[in-house]
Amino acid sequence: MKYFEDFPVGHRRELGTTSVTEDEIVRFAREFDPQPFHIDRAAADASFFGGIIASGWHTCSLAMRLIVDGFLSQAASMGSPGVDAVRWKKPVRPGDRLTLFATTIAAKASATKADRGILTSDMEFIDQHGDVVMTMTAMTMLGRRPSA
Amino acid sequence: MKYFEDFPVGHRRELGTTSVTEDEIVRFAREFDPQPFHIDRAAADASFFGGIIASGWHTCSLAMRLIVDGFLSQAASMGSPGVDAVRWKKPVRPGDRLTLFATTIAAKASATKADRGILTSDMEFIDQHGDVVMTMTAMTMLGRRPSA
Repeated sequence: MKYFEDFPVGHRRELGTTSVTEDEIVRFAREFDPQPFHIDRAAADASFFGGIIASGWHTCSLAMRLIVDGFLSQAASMGSPGVDAVRWKKPVRPGDRLTLFATTIAAKASATKADRGILTSDMEFIDQHGDVVMTMTAMTMLGRRPSA
Repeated sequence: MKYFEDFPVGHRRELGTTSVTEDEIVRFAREFDPQPFHIDRAAADASFFGGIIASGWHTCSLAMRLIVDGFLSQAASMGSPGVDAVRWKKPVRPGDRLTLFATTIAAKASATKADRGILTSDMEFIDQHGDVVMTMTAMTMLGRRPSA
């Protein structure tokens, strides 16, 4: 198990790689974001995106899966108060392979609860061309290492 | 069709109401956020949440569906550069009914592209008890009204 103390400011970690298919993009968007450029190939081809692209919330959700598998599942996670500065910088397209990196930019022990602290991490989601498709700043509440 | 000019600063709109079941919460979380308090009822009951709660990204995605159905599908939407200050303020639980409100806080015509502008809107997602479960500040690129 990893704790708040294991991710000091400046700590950089690679959280894993995922990919996404056109079927997955369309299925997510039919449920949550049914804009034509997410769900209709002909409309998407004719749009200024020039083809099907993933909902930005799908991209966030793909990143979250890597955050769970590559970070939270091995750490004393206590949930998150939120995220800041989500930026969808390049459209995510079918077949893209995306790798997530996180860097701790702040680590603040709770002033009122001695058992926890909040990490703030800059996240970068990078595609197979090395281009940044999304960035965000995520807060994570983590348990502190118990005293020996 | 509605345009950038139809949503001036101070414009407040109700975008619709949705609800979420335990099955939907678990299905979303198994795919994107498989933390025990999202997918395992016994583990969730024993956690500090005291029961299954929705992934924060599921809550965002439920809000997005209302944004599409109640706003973007009737407007000249050109995508979004991102969102700021997403805050998960109260856990969303099975059976909750959530209503989304948006208020324009900034409306900036593009300096370089005469056909579009960016709206910035504060979003509030309110449950059946009148409590705020999530807030965020969303940017939306919208086409400007064509000249007559």
